[in-house]
Amino acid sequence: MKVIYPGSFDPLTYGHIDIIERCSEQFELITVAVLINNAKVGLFTTQERLDLIRETTKHLKNVRVDSFRGLLIDYAKKIDTNIIIKGLRAVSDFEYEMQMALANKKLYPKLETFFMVSNMKYSFLSSSIVKEVSILGGDVSGFVPKVVEDSLKVKIKGGL
Amino acid sequence: MKVIYPGSFDPLTYGHIDIIERCSEQFELITVAVLINNAKVGLFTTQERLDLIRETTKHLKNVRVDSFRGLLIDYAKKIDTNIIIKGLRAVSDFEYEMQMALANKKLYPKLETFFMVSNMKYSFLSSSIVKEVSILGGDVSGFVPKVVEDSLKVKIKGGL
Amino acid sequence: MKVIYPGSFDPLTYGHIDIIERCSEQFELITVAVLINNAKVGLFTTQERLDLIRETTKHLKNVRVDSFRGLLIDYAKKIDTNIIIKGLRAVSDFEYEMQMALANKKLYPKLETFFMVSNMKYSFLSSSIVKEVSILGGDVSGFVPKVVEDSLKVKIKGGL
Amino acid sequence: MKVIYPGSFDPLTYGHIDIIERCSEQFELITVAVLINNAKVGLFTTQERLDLIRETTKHLKNVRVDSFRGLLIDYAKKIDTNIIIKGLRAVSDFEYEMQMALANKKLYPKLETFFMVSNMKYSFLSSSIVKEVSILGGDVSGFVPKVVEDSLKVKIKGGL
Amino acid sequence: MKVIYPGSFDPLTYGHIDIIERCSEQFELITVAVLINNAKVGLFTTQERLDLIRETTKHLKNVRVDSFRGLLIDYAKKIDTNIIIKGLRAVSDFEYEMQMALANKKLYPKLETFFMVSNMKYSFLSSSIVKEVSILGGDVSGFVPKVVEDSLKVKIKGGL
Amino acid sequence: MKVIYPGSFDPLTYGHIDIIERCSEQFELITVAVLINNAKVGLFTTQERLDLIRETTKHLKNVRVDSFRGLLIDYAKKIDTNIIIKGLRAVSDFEYEMQMALANKKLYPKLETFFMVSNMKYSFLSSSIVKEVSILGGDVSGFVPKVVEDSLKVKIKGGL
Repeated sequence: MKVIYPGSFDPLTYGHIDIIERCSEQFELITVAVLINNAKVGLFTTQERLDLIRETTKHLKNVRVDSFRGLLIDYAKKIDTNIIIKGLRAVSDFEYEMQMALANKKLYPKLETFFMVSNMKYSFLSSSIVKEVSILGGDVSGFVPKVVEDSLKVKIKGGL
Repeated sequence: MKVIYPGSFDPLTYGHIDIIERCSEQFELITVAVLINNAKVGLFTTQERLDLIRETTKHLKNVRVDSFRGLLIDYAKKIDTNIIIKGLRAVSDFEYEMQMALANKKLYPKLETFFMVSNMKYSFLSSSIVKEVSILGGDVSGFVPKVVEDSLKVKIKGGL
Repeated sequence: MKVIYPGSFDPLTYGHIDIIERCSEQFELITVAVLINNAKVGLFTTQERLDLIRETTKHLKNVRVDSFRGLLIDYAKKIDTNIIIKGLRAVSDFEYEMQMALANKKLYPKLETFFMVSNMKYSFLSSSIVKEVSILGGDVSGFVPKVVEDSLKVKIKGGL
Repeated sequence: MKVIYPGSFDPLTYGHIDIIERCSEQFELITVAVLINNAKVGLFTTQERLDLIRETTKHLKNVRVDSFRGLLIDYAKKIDTNIIIKGLRAVSDFEYEMQMALANKKLYPKLETFFMVSNMKYSFLSSSIVKEVSILGGDVSGFVPKVVEDSLKVKIKGGL
Repeated sequence: MKVIYPGSFDPLTYGHIDIIERCSEQFELITVAVLINNAKVGLFTTQERLDLIRETTKHLKNVRVDSFRGLLIDYAKKIDTNIIIKGLRAVSDFEYEMQMALANKKLYPKLETFFMVSNMKYSFLSSSIVKEVSILGGDVSGFVPKVVEDSLKVKIKGGL
Repeated sequence: MKVIYPGSFDPLTYGHIDIIERCSEQFELITVAVLINNAKVGLFTTQERLDLIRETTKHLKNVRVDSFRGLLIDYAKKIDTNIIIKGLRAVSDFEYEMQMALANKKLYPKLETFFMVSNMKYSFLSSSIVKEVSILGGDVSGFVPKVVEDSLKVKIKGGL
């Protein structure tokens, strides 16, 4: 059974890694898929996000890291994988994600979205909070792996 | 009994049409009122939105299509109609809409807001999702009427 | 335009009265309909609830007070009124009420449910809280009209 | 990959069947597991619930129907299946289910809960509503399969 | 500054202890107040609950353990303490607690309720889950202190 | 006991004043702290916000008005005050605020966040609504004190 774990991953956090590791134990293959969003400039480039995810998940043999542009359902068809994994932290997450899952199912009835509850330890954690804390000079070592922390420092020192 | 159904309608979806048709059966007159928002550029111009709504609702004799600028309560006073209709899909909708209904009632105590639950079939549907799917090349024929779908294609081909 | 305002009204609170008065100004006729629930023993009998509502709303000429047994949709058909009014205070209210509105619409597609937002002053108020405070000896004069307050005292002195 | 779909199923509805059918297409084996709750008397006996589920899912070759007593994690260990499937309709569902998923994970870290969003058509549907409508004489043919509808009629005619 | 931390504590969990310890560091005196609810039979008697809380909090010099009957506002007046502390885990908690805070403020305007967010580690934890897991033979050592765990075993062996 | 009440206060509303006055009665010192957000241009400058808060709270002897840049936890350490006060109106507020409270506690374990429920009268009120109504020419005298209302008029007449 193969699954897609899509997201912005700008940048990868311990919350994402928790989901990736748990999926890695359950599924044959998990494709971590970075959405290329032309309308929104991120902190990291797509290539940097891919590199950080690859570096962090290299110990997991059944994790593939990729990027996609356009509709998730088109990407799912292209790589012939019709299960989407989403991590959930809170109710507001759930409402938006439920809406997307229903829209995707309407567009592509074979698609299934499985929601997994984030580890409690990371229930407050998001890429936005990591960026905000990092930009304001706070310590994000409890939020992201060392390699992401170092990249954040380089980015921010460079004036964003 | 006369009502106002205000919104951005950028563009009109089957979810909006469901509410308009149900109101048309209950009320003497329903005014579909497009909010002109100077602070936010939409995909369609106000005139285009009005045209799409008029075209789509022309079979309903008690539906009027109009636009307004400024506070909803001032528009309500101007057209002498003090009932507002809002469609609700999910909880996050409800919280924002409840806040607006309470603020409007504080500003104009005679105003009443009636909330109607969207048809289940359209519980995931929003103008934003229609635009997003359309821009990414997806099929929106299940989300909007043919005339809106065609206009979306023209818009997007033209480079937005 | 005629509407039904259904509920348990065990007992009537200022929150209910606010909805009744606002409906009375908008609609030709509002039928306040006490649900007779065989499965749940209330504090007040159906007759007592009807009497308290009638006494409290006697100044409103277009308010009718009635009781019903069985499905709301059957009662709506019987009195030939297909608009239901529900007051909403909070999100949990909304979710349950949305579920009921959707189930009722599935059972009887002509039925419409209009939700009205409770007056802020009564956003915490429910019949349950009135009963709880009253049983524990608290002052409910800010929650219910005098006639209900007096009936509560008689009930509770009598040992429930 | 094997999964457990636990619940009370008192009785099985079209909402449950939708989840079972979708899981049947994705997983090798799905065990529909009826929780035997000593503390709560249901409308149907455990045996009746099992029979109705078996009858309704007999066209699905990879669906097993079973019952269990005690903790879900102990049952999961016993049948050597550590993925739980839960269907979600609304936010209140989600909060309770998230709490249970976290508690189960604390008790048995290898357990994973996957949440699937209910089909929009059944977003209002629950066993409780089916029972309530049925007891009040309403038509539940849009909510449950024929065999469940017939059993409900027999039950209710018999005076519950 | 003195505060009341009211609740059922049937039984005390690590979630409660977290709140008590954090309050103990901030306030002069914290009164843990067990509500005596005549309408609901608990697993533990009031005396047992008091004993378990006293035993568990004896290392905290500014914690007082007490019980009360009736309205919380009357108890607050009696012990001349007008700040209530409530722990919050999730949104459904919050809505009910917000309703109670508003009702209490209406009844006694000088009363203030301060909400504290539960430690993430205990975000799933409630007395109900502890009892449920314990009755079904599960291991609650991660949920409650040893003295509570032992009392639960004695209770349950005794046939509740 | 000293507390920080942080926010944007762009501009101060009656909702904020309600929280400040209630805190002023409970705590020795309340520091109203205006967050200087480089990434977001407000309607009022930091200096104007500080002036409006100082003018409005000058009758409260234990209220200090200040501004800060960077992380709230760093500001809290700097002024040696580790209790944060946040007002809550609705569920969506709560989720975001709970996330921030948990993130702050992770970054600085000694920090505590106390949530207070907004007065019902102001449950719809936010700085955003005040600005929106004001820009559209509406009457905000029920939402903000006279001095803020006058400043809004000057701002808006000046073309923002």
